[in-house]
Amino acid sequence: MPISELLECFENPHPNREYVIEHVAEEFTSVCPKTGHPDFGSVTLRFGPDRMCVELKSLKLYLQSFRDEGIYYEAVTNKIADDLAEAMNPRWMIVQTDWRGRGGISSTIRVTVGEVPDLEYD
Amino acid sequence: MPISELLECFENPHPNREYVIEHVAEEFTSVCPKTGHPDFGSVTLRFGPDRMCVELKSLKLYLQSFRDEGIYYEAVTNKIADDLAEAMNPRWMIVQTDWRGRGGISSTIRVTVGEVPDLEYD
Amino acid sequence: MPISELLECFENPHPNREYVIEHVAEEFTSVCPKTGHPDFGSVTLRFGPDRMCVELKSLKLYLQSFRDEGIYYEAVTNKIADDLAEAMNPRWMIVQTDWRGRGGISSTIRVTVGEVPDLEYD
Amino acid sequence: MPISELLECFENPHPNREYVIEHVAEEFTSVCPKTGHPDFGSVTLRFGPDRMCVELKSLKLYLQSFRDEGIYYEAVTNKIADDLAEAMNPRWMIVQTDWRGRGGISSTIRVTVGEVPDLEYD
Amino acid sequence: MPISELLECFENPHPNREYVIEHVAEEFTSVCPKTGHPDFGSVTLRFGPDRMCVELKSLKLYLQSFRDEGIYYEAVTNKIADDLAEAMNPRWMIVQTDWRGRGGISSTIRVTVGEVPDLEYD
Amino acid sequence: MPISELLECFENPHPNREYVIEHVAEEFTSVCPKTGHPDFGSVTLRFGPDRMCVELKSLKLYLQSFRDEGIYYEAVTNKIADDLAEAMNPRWMIVQTDWRGRGGISSTIRVTVGEVPDLEYD
Amino acid sequence: MPISELLECFENPHPNREYVIEHVAEEFTSVCPKTGHPDFGSVTLRFGPDRMCVELKSLKLYLQSFRDEGIYYEAVTNKIADDLAEAMNPRWMIVQTDWRGRGGISSTIRVTVGEVPDLEYD
Amino acid sequence: MPISELLECFENPHPNREYVIEHVAEEFTSVCPKTGHPDFGSVTLRFGPDRMCVELKSLKLYLQSFRDEGIYYEAVTNKIADDLAEAMNPRWMIVQTDWRGRGGISSTIRVTVGEVPDLEYD
Amino acid sequence: MPISELLECFENPHPNREYVIEHVAEEFTSVCPKTGHPDFGSVTLRFGPDRMCVELKSLKLYLQSFRDEGIYYEAVTNKIADDLAEAMNPRWMIVQTDWRGRGGISSTIRVTVGEVPDLEYD
Amino acid sequence: MPISELLECFENPHPNREYVIEHVAEEFTSVCPKTGHPDFGSVTLRFGPDRMCVELKSLKLYLQSFRDEGIYYEAVTNKIADDLAEAMNPRWMIVQTDWRGRGGISSTIRVTVGEVPDLEYD
Repeated sequence: MPISELLECFENPHPNREYVIEHVAEEFTSVCPKTGHPDFGSVTLRFGPDRMCVELKSLKLYLQSFRDEGIYYEAVTNKIADDLAEAMNPRWMIVQTDWRGRGGISSTIRVTVGEVPDLEYD
Repeated sequence: MPISELLECFENPHPNREYVIEHVAEEFTSVCPKTGHPDFGSVTLRFGPDRMCVELKSLKLYLQSFRDEGIYYEAVTNKIADDLAEAMNPRWMIVQTDWRGRGGISSTIRVTVGEVPDLEYD
Repeated sequence: MPISELLECFENPHPNREYVIEHVAEEFTSVCPKTGHPDFGSVTLRFGPDRMCVELKSLKLYLQSFRDEGIYYEAVTNKIADDLAEAMNPRWMIVQTDWRGRGGISSTIRVTVGEVPDLEYD
Repeated sequence: MPISELLECFENPHPNREYVIEHVAEEFTSVCPKTGHPDFGSVTLRFGPDRMCVELKSLKLYLQSFRDEGIYYEAVTNKIADDLAEAMNPRWMIVQTDWRGRGGISSTIRVTVGEVPDLEYD
Repeated sequence: MPISELLECFENPHPNREYVIEHVAEEFTSVCPKTGHPDFGSVTLRFGPDRMCVELKSLKLYLQSFRDEGIYYEAVTNKIADDLAEAMNPRWMIVQTDWRGRGGISSTIRVTVGEVPDLEYD
Repeated sequence: MPISELLECFENPHPNREYVIEHVAEEFTSVCPKTGHPDFGSVTLRFGPDRMCVELKSLKLYLQSFRDEGIYYEAVTNKIADDLAEAMNPRWMIVQTDWRGRGGISSTIRVTVGEVPDLEYD
Repeated sequence: MPISELLECFENPHPNREYVIEHVAEEFTSVCPKTGHPDFGSVTLRFGPDRMCVELKSLKLYLQSFRDEGIYYEAVTNKIADDLAEAMNPRWMIVQTDWRGRGGISSTIRVTVGEVPDLEYD
Repeated sequence: MPISELLECFENPHPNREYVIEHVAEEFTSVCPKTGHPDFGSVTLRFGPDRMCVELKSLKLYLQSFRDEGIYYEAVTNKIADDLAEAMNPRWMIVQTDWRGRGGISSTIRVTVGEVPDLEYD
Repeated sequence: MPISELLECFENPHPNREYVIEHVAEEFTSVCPKTGHPDFGSVTLRFGPDRMCVELKSLKLYLQSFRDEGIYYEAVTNKIADDLAEAMNPRWMIVQTDWRGRGGISSTIRVTVGEVPDLEYD
Repeated sequence: MPISELLECFENPHPNREYVIEHVAEEFTSVCPKTGHPDFGSVTLRFGPDRMCVELKSLKLYLQSFRDEGIYYEAVTNKIADDLAEAMNPRWMIVQTDWRGRGGISSTIRVTVGEVPDLEYD
């Protein structure tokens, strides 16, 4: 079961500056709750840090905790967004999952938390 | 004949959050009503779910039901948009078809339903 | 000589919906009026259909009618825009030509007709 | 059902020269005999012509005749090789099918007829 | 634990012809026996069928059975080769695994069974 | 020394229409004034023509006249912008140079003249 | 009509060394003798020069002379090979044409003249 | 230790024009302060020059001075931004670092100084 | 200084089978002995294991030990080959280094130890 | 005029081992002796060193000495091969030039000196 307690944060070294952090985990896998077959995808996390930043090693372990979880695309994405929002309370955040597809259909889910500013990536 | 009844939906697990779902079906084929030759293309569906989300297996079967249909590019795209809008009534939706081309001309048709918000993909 | 009479249109099946059609003809050739050497390029047509849509076979034949025409890049692009605007009177239209280049310089010409709405491609 | 009678040939204009012809049909579809779902792939035909060459329009129609056929990857490839070998009796021939995949596994089948000489592609 | 009994075969429809079959499974995961962290990679299987061909659905399930197995790259590759050689006894076979890498080093292991003929891919 | 007199213009065939012209010269070379080593890059020119358009052959010769000039990236880009602005007085113009880099650092300089409208390229 | 007299040669500056020359003309067009529609492709010429080399400007004009010729893929390729073999009598030569395709099928024709040595490209 | 004194500037040759300079250093390395392992990435610097521009050779040496520094991604990026802002006081500036990743997660940090105008890159 | 003692090996689990292992380290850096500037490149190691295989973590640490070493491209490559040959005594081995380049020239060095069999990669 | 005296060599640190060195200079320019226009291309040098290796800085300066030379593609390539063969007397060598093209035709010239062994690149 996904374990949000695995997420650890460290203090943002520049809490007064509005800047952007992006982490891309290329190797994510969970299990389709309907068929029991594994799903494979990537997870992209982009956010404006406020007082805390997520620590990379803990992010990796947290994402690995979905490995045996039967969970839909939409639920994975919303849960990661909720857990990370609670853990580090960013100014704003985008969580996007890209799935390699089943039956010839690939999918992407994108959840936005807060107001994304213009200084985001182009 | 395309069968809109094949489309099934499930309840959006996060109906209060405005987020984005995209499904890309790379393998779509229908028939040119003029020449009888097959057309090949892909279908991209992007939407903000409201109370319902389209189920992937049913989406696949629905798209397969166009296989023997003699229908123009423009009509395919508008029909998919109409059927999906009726089935899940999204906040907004984009349906885009990309066709491999006939006689050296490739084509794209894009239909928009509702007001697309800024949180769309970049 | 380019023959605008070759362009045929059919009735837009969804005249009340604002949507986007794009056709890309990869293989276009005309003749440089100065040197007599052939020019090679592609033609991209993107528009919001109003009451009429251009028929693909007729578009192909129309574009082929430039094959022996001595005509500059700028004139080709503007003439295609004028002929198509007259033939189908779209809500808006973009005509872009991309040329493979002469003497190490490649070129692109882009003509816009009407007001391009935000629902255009991203 | 695939119709080998659709294949037409014309006389090789240079029957005394050993040379190579390749045709790639990007848009091929047949049906999985087990699940009834459509399969999508491409067909590559490479051969050294002897007295006859396959005519392109007839090749296209022949490949389209597999559209409703329930047939395995291996059988498709071997049947195309057999039909073309009988139709034009080439010096040598390679027929390769590349399939977009089912369940995360993509496949390729390659059948060789006769002795492929060194003048093949590198 | 990897379960070789999952592998099922069907009879080669053309046992007298020497030809080539390739299957590529893009989504493979096992576990590093040293660190317990998941490994991600792809598995490519290329072979000349003799009397039997491996069935695709069973191949997929067999590869999924490595999901919780703590096993080194080299052992994964050799075990897949051994299991498949025993299941279908091909004329020749190549099993290659490509791993996304740990600590900035990506790896590939390639095992060959039998004598690979010249009709292999170029 | 760069020779702005080499630039020739012709009359814009559609002076009343607001449209876009882009020329990309892939092969540009000048000399680093500090080290004497050659610099290599490309020059992109995009503008909205007013009454005049730059002639391509003359643009090529003008750019070649920088070949032996010891001149910094920033100065090259601003000089080209100034010379072209004077020669054809466009509604607006962008001049961008992309340099292959020295010491592992590649550079791009972009100068804008006038107000770039929304009809620019996307 | 293609005009082989357009081909001009100059003396190979190193007639005693066995080396390789390749020219690729990306922009070739002729006419399909059956439908009258234009065909588009590229021509690759690779050879080991003996006493003469083909001059580039004359090669360009020679290839342009096919522009209005109704001629099949196979005949184009063999004619270019014959004309160039006669004009410069190379030690060996490969002429390859790559065609953008008609009806979803792209084609390549490759003609070899003489014995291609091992020092060819890899 | 990173040495901001290494940064040298020269006078902007066009201080009255608002334009854009971008430098990309593909080869950057520092040390992870937690594990002691090297980190590898690239540094992109984009700015609107005011009275001074950073000199390229000095920028290279400055970036090399991070080679033995144990420092986090976020701190690297903010320090470079601070040092460059102090050295040349640009109208605006973006500093972005792209890291090749540790444990399957790649990262990007982007710091913005001042108000980025619309004339920035698209 | 490069420390060959860092290299650790484990027993080849299939010492009687002739197979291939490849490791690619994308992030390698050493120092130019002439200029003192850092060099950046990648190291590819391909070998047929005999009784021992190199352990990945130790390989990583060994390659990191070149970080402060002033050493030429040719010497790096030969030293890695010598150290690995001594550590695991493979049936055959290829060590290749690819360098990002200095002054516009990129380089590759490839050292072969023993006789490379035909079962190598294509 | 190209100055072969600029080429400097250093002693091969492993003269008894047969190995491969490749240098690629992406930015080469000379002048067309017929038209006076600049030619742009790249130079690839691959060789098996015997007692001497070419020094990189000197190679760069040597290649720069062609900048103002009016010289044909074939002569450039043969001259570089001759000068390098004389300077370092390699076991074998390949010199290849790739030219960006004039009038829509790009070219490659490849000169081989000595007997190229099988240990060359694949």
